[in-house]
Amino acid sequence: MSEQPGRIMACEIAEQPAVLWHLLEKGAPRIREVATAIAARRPRFVLLTARGTSDNAALYAKYLMEIELGLPCGLTSMSTTTAYEARPDLTDVLVITVSQSGGSPDLVASTKAAREAGAVTLAVTNNPASPLAAVSEFHIDVLAGAEKALPATKTYTASLLSLYLFVQGMRGNDGAAAKVLPDLTADILSRRDEVRQLASRYRFAERMVITSRGYGYSSAKEAALKLMETSYIPALSYSGADLLHGPLAMVDNHSPVIAVVADGKGGEALQPVLDRLLDRGADLVVVGPRSQVEAASAGFVLPTAGVPEELQPVLEILPLQILAYEVTIARGQDPDAPRALAKITETH
Amino acid sequence: MSEQPGRIMACEIAEQPAVLWHLLEKGAPRIREVATAIAARRPRFVLLTARGTSDNAALYAKYLMEIELGLPCGLTSMSTTTAYEARPDLTDVLVITVSQSGGSPDLVASTKAAREAGAVTLAVTNNPASPLAAVSEFHIDVLAGAEKALPATKTYTASLLSLYLFVQGMRGNDGAAAKVLPDLTADILSRRDEVRQLASRYRFAERMVITSRGYGYSSAKEAALKLMETSYIPALSYSGADLLHGPLAMVDNHSPVIAVVADGKGGEALQPVLDRLLDRGADLVVVGPRSQVEAASAGFVLPTAGVPEELQPVLEILPLQILAYEVTIARGQDPDAPRALAKITETH
Repeated sequence: MSEQPGRIMACEIAEQPAVLWHLLEKGAPRIREVATAIAARRPRFVLLTARGTSDNAALYAKYLMEIELGLPCGLTSMSTTTAYEARPDLTDVLVITVSQSGGSPDLVASTKAAREAGAVTLAVTNNPASPLAAVSEFHIDVLAGAEKALPATKTYTASLLSLYLFVQGMRGNDGAAAKVLPDLTADILSRRDEVRQLASRYRFAERMVITSRGYGYSSAKEAALKLMETSYIPALSYSGADLLHGPLAMVDNHSPVIAVVADGKGGEALQPVLDRLLDRGADLVVVGPRSQVEAASAGFVLPTAGVPEELQPVLEILPLQILAYEVTIARGQDPDAPRALAKITETH
Repeated sequence: MSEQPGRIMACEIAEQPAVLWHLLEKGAPRIREVATAIAARRPRFVLLTARGTSDNAALYAKYLMEIELGLPCGLTSMSTTTAYEARPDLTDVLVITVSQSGGSPDLVASTKAAREAGAVTLAVTNNPASPLAAVSEFHIDVLAGAEKALPATKTYTASLLSLYLFVQGMRGNDGAAAKVLPDLTADILSRRDEVRQLASRYRFAERMVITSRGYGYSSAKEAALKLMETSYIPALSYSGADLLHGPLAMVDNHSPVIAVVADGKGGEALQPVLDRLLDRGADLVVVGPRSQVEAASAGFVLPTAGVPEELQPVLEILPLQILAYEVTIARGQDPDAPRALAKITETH
């Protein structure tokens, strides 16, 4: 363990307001160009390919593209290409591969195969010199700067914002609504003490359930991954609807539940699930608007006024990144260097 | 709790050889007709819609259709339709909705919306009189007979086989390879004592990780769901590749891991993950071919000789259904009636 465990992750979390600002200032015009060029190709279906944290960014993009562009989307099961050598006809298909490193061999192989099968290919990475960027027809640089902690933080929010700007660009919009994000991000990150207090709740937790619905579902999945890879607490994430189809049996008054509640339609759709959880006596911590936090056991109030629901995921993950960090520190572990993980995961 | 906890689930598990036999004898011709009619419509993209156990059957179908039919597939994020009212253009899209009851309002609404948006719609249910069957253009009856235990078992294997026969029908094949299944299923179910011995291992487990790759991934997810909804053990399922991208940090020598190892390409692709798990000192139980079980801490040998990899999921889930049942009985709970669950889950 380093002298200051978690120092790198803490720095990278703190960089996020600057990273988002830089992306809006310097990255947006190029993203708009890529979006315009891809829109002209008139894709009819979208396949998203990613793993780990990037897979959660891809899930966010899936909701965004289905809702805002009306394009049916799927998440790729990569082994169909890499292990079973499936070669589907991908004419009219846009294949988006998201990877901070752009280095995992299976992502490179599957993107290369997609391009050969007729897809329009777009890589979204934090490394324009990566093999993934090289094999893709189009590339978006999320411009987050080198990320050194093993748990990805700033590349996640930068990927979300890049994908948001891309989808807005596909519609001919400039994505100006995102300009509120850097300041709101800074505000949220300044409230670290509130999160530290929440973290004490999970000092001895043996499991956690994290739920959401709609746009917030990617935040729930990313929060679960972050908690698992830093604190090693088994954190299960479900869409609220899926939770009712089985895993709810697992939730009782010993089970901590975190709900990411969007201020918008996703939050409304989650309401019956929140009611069921409270009925069952679950310890329910809410990340969301004030009214929802007040109805729960505890929570973190997100500033959502004036933020469209589709941009809220960039904010939702911030207290949950800090939570993963604080729980891990409280447990005497080093968030910078989870055991068994490497920054570029070489899956084939 | 009933006088004989788990009696209904045990009966329904035991019915599976007869259910599969009946489906092959009586259901196959009608499935072939549906497949021929849908193949004539030449779908170019497939969306699969389901929740809970049926979602795992849908995931199996995703691999099958991508690999065997070369059709790009996606799993539907239902809330994009039901909460956000997205109305994508679904021309050339086949939408398959899988649901044992055919009764969940969100599945009915999303299938109806898909049909209105131009999709070819197919419902795969255990209830031809259901609202879902009524709103779909095509229907396949999985013919499993009434299922009364809350944890679905026979409707899962019947759905897998129905989807297999459907995909073979799309290719003009009769699916004769499946005829080995009823006898093999009966053989596996007769080895309940072996599973009971494995179950004692998990009597006090506080969490489990279940992994696989390729076709077996749906078996890993379904096993995790079955264990959670009956025994309430938090069971996390990951594709082997995703496990290496983060959650592996959670696995140490206290963490029981179950791997579903296919005899085929999925098993080969999982090999580096199995090696990493054994390196880390994980307690690794394998469901798969004899050589893989012998290399692990313990396991259940599947009779895979002569069974194509794409049919092995029908067999893989059987010892894991029994495992969920036995662990639950050992913990003094009733597998027939998990707390908080209803057989027809009314999500909207």
